[in-house]
Parts: sequence; C-alpha cells; structure tokens
Amino acid sequence: VLFLGIDLGATNIAAALVDESGSIIRSSSTPTLSVRPATQVIDDMVALSLRLIGDEGLTEQDIAALGVGIPGIVSSETGVVHLCPNLFWQQLPLKDMLQTHLSMPVHITNDANCAALAELQVGAFRSRQSAVLITLGSGIGGAVILGGKLHSGAHGAAGEIGHMVVELCGELCACGNRGCFERYASADALMRMYSADASTRMYSADASTRMNSASNTTDIPTGKTHTAKEIIAAAKNGEPTATAVFEKYVYSLAKGIVSIINLYDPEIIALGGGISHAGDFLLQTVRKEVSKHLFLKDCPSAEIVLATLGNEAGIIGAALYAMQKIRQIKCL
Amino acid sequence: VLFLGIDLGATNIAAALVDESGSIIRSSSTPTLSVRPATQVIDDMVALSLRLIGDEGLTEQDIAALGVGIPGIVSSETGVVHLCPNLFWQQLPLKDMLQTHLSMPVHITNDANCAALAELQVGAFRSRQSAVLITLGSGIGGAVILGGKLHSGAHGAAGEIGHMVVELCGELCACGNRGCFERYASADALMRMYSADASTRMYSADASTRMNSASNTTDIPTGKTHTAKEIIAAAKNGEPTATAVFEKYVYSLAKGIVSIINLYDPEIIALGGGISHAGDFLLQTVRKEVSKHLFLKDCPSAEIVLATLGNEAGIIGAALYAMQKIRQIKCL
Repeated sequence: VLFLGIDLGATNIAAALVDESGSIIRSSSTPTLSVRPATQVIDDMVALSLRLIGDEGLTEQDIAALGVGIPGIVSSETGVVHLCPNLFWQQLPLKDMLQTHLSMPVHITNDANCAALAELQVGAFRSRQSAVLITLGSGIGGAVILGGKLHSGAHGAAGEIGHMVVELCGELCACGNRGCFERYASADALMRMYSADASTRMYSADASTRMNSASNTTDIPTGKTHTAKEIIAAAKNGEPTATAVFEKYVYSLAKGIVSIINLYDPEIIALGGGISHAGDFLLQTVRKEVSKHLFLKDCPSAEIVLATLGNEAGIIGAALYAMQKIRQIKCL
Repeated sequence: VLFLGIDLGATNIAAALVDESGSIIRSSSTPTLSVRPATQVIDDMVALSLRLIGDEGLTEQDIAALGVGIPGIVSSETGVVHLCPNLFWQQLPLKDMLQTHLSMPVHITNDANCAALAELQVGAFRSRQSAVLITLGSGIGGAVILGGKLHSGAHGAAGEIGHMVVELCGELCACGNRGCFERYASADALMRMYSADASTRMYSADASTRMNSASNTTDIPTGKTHTAKEIIAAAKNGEPTATAVFEKYVYSLAKGIVSIINLYDPEIIALGGGISHAGDFLLQTVRKEVSKHLFLKDCPSAEIVLATLGNEAGIIGAALYAMQKIRQIKCL
C-alpha cells in the first residue's frame, strides 16, 4: 500500500510516495511561489501529486490516501487551515479544495506534527510513548506525542511551543503576543542577537581586544547579516562575540526546554530544524544548561537528542499521518 | 464501597471517607506540625485514618483503598515522595511506610492531581476530556487531564505549571530556577507585588494624590503585609495601588494561561486555590486579558472557569485516585 505525502513550505512544495514502513519510493518538488492566490498553489499541489503517481507507473486508485503538512494552524477534523502566515492563508478549506481534484482521501495537519510522526515511526522517537519535537528554524515549531500518538489538543492547536511565553513583557511576536519563545530561541533570534551584539561591540571599549583576538580565530566580519550556521561555526571556533551570543541563545533555549519538561514530562525531546545541524556542539551545550535549571535535579527526566530525519521528515510524516487517519476510520 | 482520602498539607492533615460517587461520608483533620520527623507525621496519618473508620462503625476491611495527596513531586508507581519542600521530605518511601500500618491498598500522588480528579468526577471538569487545573495559593500547583485521565508524565512530574519559566532571567524560585510562573502569579506573588508597589508609592510624587483618594475608597494602610484577599478586595473597590498591582498580577497570570493554551490546548481551564475566592471579579478580568494575547483570536479556545470544589477537592480526589488505581489493577 502506498501513500502520498506533501510538505507545503513557504519556498517549496515537496511531495513523495511513501510506503507503509515510512520509506520514500519517489519524491519531487516545485516552487511554492507563496504570493500567488491559494487556488494556484493548490493546483500545483495536485499537478505534482498526479505527476509523481504517473512517473511511478501508477494511477490514483493505487494510492490509499494523501496527507498534507501545513506550516500553520490547522483543524484536522474540518480540514480548514485557520492561519498560515507564510502563505497568507486564513480560514482556507484546503482539504475540500484538494478533494475536488483528487479521488483518494485527503487529510491535512500541521507540519511539525508530521515531522514528529515521522520521528515516531522511523526516527528519534521510535518505540517512545511520549516525546516532544522542537524545530528551531526561522520560527520555532513544535509537536507533542503522548500515549504513542500525536497530541493535537481540543481545538487542533496544541504543541505551539514557539508561542509559549518566556518573557512577560518581551519582544513583540508575529502572533501579536509579547515574549514568545521563538523570539528568543529560533534561528532568526540567534541572528538578531548576533547583529545587535556585534554592532554594540564595534563601538564599545573592548573593540580593540576583539580586533586583536580576531586574527587567530574564525571571526566573522560585521556590517552584514550572518546566518545562524556562520554564527554557530564561529562560536565553535571560539570567536568571542559569537561565543557570548551562542551562550545567551542556549540559555534561552534551555529555559524553554525546562518549561517543557515541567509541563509535559516527556520521555524524550528532539531538536530539529536548521539550528540542529550544529549537532553535538549544540546538544552538549544544551544538555549542560538544561541540567542546571531542572526542577528535580536528582530524578530522571527527558532525554535530549537531535532529530534524526532531516528535510524528509515532513513528507514522510504527512504520508504516515494519512495512513494513521484512514486506519482509524477503518477501525470504527 | 468506601475509600479513604488523605490530603496532606503543610498545616493540616485532612482525611475523609468517600463513596464511589465522590461524596464525603465523614471527615476529620489534625495538625501536620510539619517540622516533626516524617515518621511522626505518618503515625498521625494512620491514627486519623483508623479513627475515621472506627467512628463510622467500620473496620479496615470495609475500606477498598487509601489515596494520599502530597504537596510535592511523587512517583505514583514506586510510592516515593521525591520532593516535598513544605514538609522537608526528600526521597521518602511514603507508600511503603503507610502500608506497614494499614491493611488496605495505599496509593499516593500529587495533591493538585487529586484536586483535578475531584473536579473531573464531581466538579468543573465533569464530562470533559481535556482540562487544566491551576491552583493559585502560596505557590502555583497544576494538574492536567488528557483523554479523560490524569496526565502524569513519563517520570510522574508533568503538570508542574508553577515552574513554567515566564521570565528568562527572572526572580529566583525555591526550585532553584529563575523566572518561574509562581513567582509572578501566586497569592504570595500578589502580596509581594503589593508590598513593593505600596512602599514605592509612599515616597513617590503621587503620594498626596493617593492619600486624597484614599478617603473615599477602601484604601488599606501601608506598613504591614496585606493578604491577597485584602488586596483583591481593595482593587475591587477601586483603591489605586491595589488596582494597579492587581492589573499587573492578572497580566502575568493571563500570559501563563495563554502559554498553557498554546501548549496543551485543553477544553477547559479552572482556577483554584485561595486567589480563586475572588470569584467573578477575577474571572472576568482574567478572561479579558487572556483574549488579548491569544494566538488564534478568531478560533475557539479553552473555556476559563473557577474550580467548583473548595478545600474538599484534595480529600475527595485522593479517595477517587485510590479508586481509579484499584480498578485499573482489577481490569488487568
């Protein structure tokens, strides 16, 4: 039995044919061009799906279901995308719109939920009953597994870890609230923190020290925006500004993780998204910082690991979500 | 069938005989005298239990099980109290210690969990699948119901809502972390905020205005510590300092509630503990403030209500917890 998974991103629409074990059989992608009307994006999602099926020498009847992961808030029951800021969508009946073009059952959910499902089936969460995925990208996505299943909440809005408040009167977030976790621990937050810190240091008293030390470290030039990858690489090499900013970043990230432990008490927490490519350097620093702030320091608490599936987590998980949904229905 | 419930508090040990429907048949209490050695407190818990049973004309054999609610972190499986700051207990094998004196099965859990179970059976959470109880007392306790059951987490430490971080570099908490929710939204926090604010105002430029306005409002004299009840009563009557402090307090409380919504997305949230006696005045202010900071303003989200069971929630819930435990075992 084959399933179709679509990972709808702000940049690309990625799709794959996935088997029951979570292996990708064939995949493809097309640009999202997110400023277009929703109908055009949806037409491309349908065309990409049909092309993948045809290229594999199959017909729509060979596909058990389509799952779609959306970077926003979705009601899986009604199939409505309530809010998807990256695509400027609001209250869009996506499931129904896709279903008019496709004969297979369509199921939609949040993209972080898809990634967590993929980790549960074939990644870091295998054989776990409770787990939290934190994706550290331009924002912070989150998904929670409880009792071996996705915890989607009473209104489909659970696990919005990026919008947990970590500063009562903090920075303004795109969601309209102040002090959200993603303003302090996303890749964008790291970049902002570095820019702010670097420009302060350029004019500060320790500028000369910094210039001197720069010659024998991998200092990165100021005056332009640096990627999170560059900042972490510089921190790894001991560049003072990058090191200071990275420590501050990890402090914020660790405090958020401690909150997640104090609330969900999961077996395992996985870090995914762009920042997680920093690998062991990130992981060791985070584990050490988390251990300092734990409520119960002498008791076992969540293991902290890196997510094991990269960009493919979204499409695999979307397909697995569709599989889970149609099997639930069959059981009833 | 009858069950025994004990609510162990820092001040009193409360116990009750409770029937299957959650009704109290007979109750009694005795001072905890928490500075005593644990063995003496436990002896009194046993004596109180046996006295209640005897007073009702029953024997131990008539009681199906004893449930005990502890104001701390408990492993329900091992029966060990990991940490109970109010009684100075650490890694105490309470279940085994009680079991040596009593023939009925003993089950222990967190006191907020008991209160939530009681609300689920006979209070504000009746017929709900997902709910969060926030008890606003000297600290902040919390308990989470998911899928109609207590969510206790992988290590028995879930739902520690009071130790969710709301300020990255905030006030030092008793747990060793900084910026915990209970430092900003407990009854003690309200009292601290009022003391700090009142003493500032005494020496500030608006002191004269305040003194003038005091004559026709229920201003409360400065220079002594005021209870949360007094501060809320003064705010209700429009006293300027109390009003300003209460607004600040509700802002912090509301931000924490928004985090809980963004993480758990429950059907309902109930406010319990001493602060909740402020009733509708608190509830209306909190609801209004929460609505300002919601992630999805146009979508349905958790209903916010007052807990309906007062001080009895703990003993009823402890008994119901024991009932749940022995029925689980019978089903296996």
